[in-house]
Amino acid sequence: MSRRIAFAKGQGTGNDFILLADPEGELELGAREVSALCDRRFGIGADGLIRAVRTRSAGLNERATALLSASEWFMDYRNADGSLAEMCGNGIRVFARFLEEEGLAAAQPGGALPLGTRAGIVEVQRSPLGFTADLGVWRPGPDVTVRATHLSVPRPGLSIDVGNPHVVVALADTAELEALDLAAAPALDPEQPHGANVEFVVPEEPLVLDGVGRIRMRVHERGSGETLSCGTGAVAAALATRFWAGEGAPDDWQVDVPGGRLAVRVFATEDGEHVALSGPAQIVYRGTIEL
Amino acid sequence: MSRRIAFAKGQGTGNDFILLADPEGELELGAREVSALCDRRFGIGADGLIRAVRTRSAGLNERATALLSASEWFMDYRNADGSLAEMCGNGIRVFARFLEEEGLAAAQPGGALPLGTRAGIVEVQRSPLGFTADLGVWRPGPDVTVRATHLSVPRPGLSIDVGNPHVVVALADTAELEALDLAAAPALDPEQPHGANVEFVVPEEPLVLDGVGRIRMRVHERGSGETLSCGTGAVAAALATRFWAGEGAPDDWQVDVPGGRLAVRVFATEDGEHVALSGPAQIVYRGTIEL
Repeated sequence: MSRRIAFAKGQGTGNDFILLADPEGELELGAREVSALCDRRFGIGADGLIRAVRTRSAGLNERATALLSASEWFMDYRNADGSLAEMCGNGIRVFARFLEEEGLAAAQPGGALPLGTRAGIVEVQRSPLGFTADLGVWRPGPDVTVRATHLSVPRPGLSIDVGNPHVVVALADTAELEALDLAAAPALDPEQPHGANVEFVVPEEPLVLDGVGRIRMRVHERGSGETLSCGTGAVAAALATRFWAGEGAPDDWQVDVPGGRLAVRVFATEDGEHVALSGPAQIVYRGTIEL
Repeated sequence: MSRRIAFAKGQGTGNDFILLADPEGELELGAREVSALCDRRFGIGADGLIRAVRTRSAGLNERATALLSASEWFMDYRNADGSLAEMCGNGIRVFARFLEEEGLAAAQPGGALPLGTRAGIVEVQRSPLGFTADLGVWRPGPDVTVRATHLSVPRPGLSIDVGNPHVVVALADTAELEALDLAAAPALDPEQPHGANVEFVVPEEPLVLDGVGRIRMRVHERGSGETLSCGTGAVAAALATRFWAGEGAPDDWQVDVPGGRLAVRVFATEDGEHVALSGPAQIVYRGTIEL
């Protein structure tokens, strides 16, 4: 039997999402239905689908429900192919905007809204750019050699784990960044066990202005190819550049991606150095579709 | 001032369109707004936008209004970049479906609905596949040599005009069709004055079954790259294969494109040999957006 469902379509720096409000967890969506909805020609079209469901009604196991008990709302994120994903750096902001526009929850000025995800609770706050999400602690990894089309010689890259694996490569200038052909996946040596998103970065002139580090990047996402934006990729790119800049490098970074501007902040907490990602989040339109 | 508009999203063999009902021609849409709406990340996303407007309210000049006086409805078709287009072989069927679902007009069983376009009146009828559109007379042109990536040697192609220019190339088998890399535009010799869409075709085994010719194709559209479907391209591919098949070739053709199945029929009329295109047309969802 077909059912008519209401949805919203949202985006953050060109990463786009279908959003469904399902407070009591009554909507059963299989992988096949999610991939059909995310199809850009035959469906609605999106990079992923986000279901807003109350944590207690999300069908999580007892342990996960307990871990996320401080968050009323759970972000049930699915990739465009229907598979489950733990987190999405751009999606979490669009999720916060959706909850707010639906009147389900709102981050109070100066306060944080705890949102449940498969990667744990993510604290989201309002910011001048839109929303800021605390992505937790980060870990630097070993160096990796990167080969990509239109790079005359292989380049050294720094591997960084921000919940998912990244390799960041510094390029000489904007011309080299623009000439890069990312139709094919860059080759990594040594190969990364789970693959990695690869960020190519150039500094702005000057690198630091008014205490803020400034970079421009392009990204190749494993499984997706080049995208307009990758939230955790922007975080990795800022962290790597900060690492290379050494002593006295700023904690605040501005990262320009093809789909817009993101901001990254590194800050100390009791459980180690955290990193937060800020950026825009917009609901573009609303619709209904028969499933 | 922002305005909220209602729209539908439709598709035919994977060619997708934003549809707006504007009976009295009150909606002013500039090229910038159309391209923003057709943007797949920041807007709704589509190959084109179709405004349904009464012919007398479409803002056409006196001559065009007189020429189209037999059609109550005009298909104001815009390309995804906001530019005007004359006709769209898949779009006209989705336009007919939209008029029907909106309760604005309907093709009666066995009868034809005359629809106004910038290429003149197009007669649309119901068909088992969905709708059939009479695309008018067609013209064969001279031979063209085609070079494409992954083709070991240049191939001969036949140029065909179906309102817009096409070059059709026969390949040896399905393996060669699938191996073809259409990321880059095929090179044409001699170059075509306005460029051309290029169709690569292979016959099914057997070519003719129960009186119907059967082919499979992929298409490179000028300005768009490879697409899931091109309505006039399917027509050109069927006409070229019928020409090569020679005496006794069928008038009915089935054309499989990556986005689905289309049917082509050649038939005699008082003003010469016409060609008609049949295929599916679906309204996928409805929505509202602020402009």
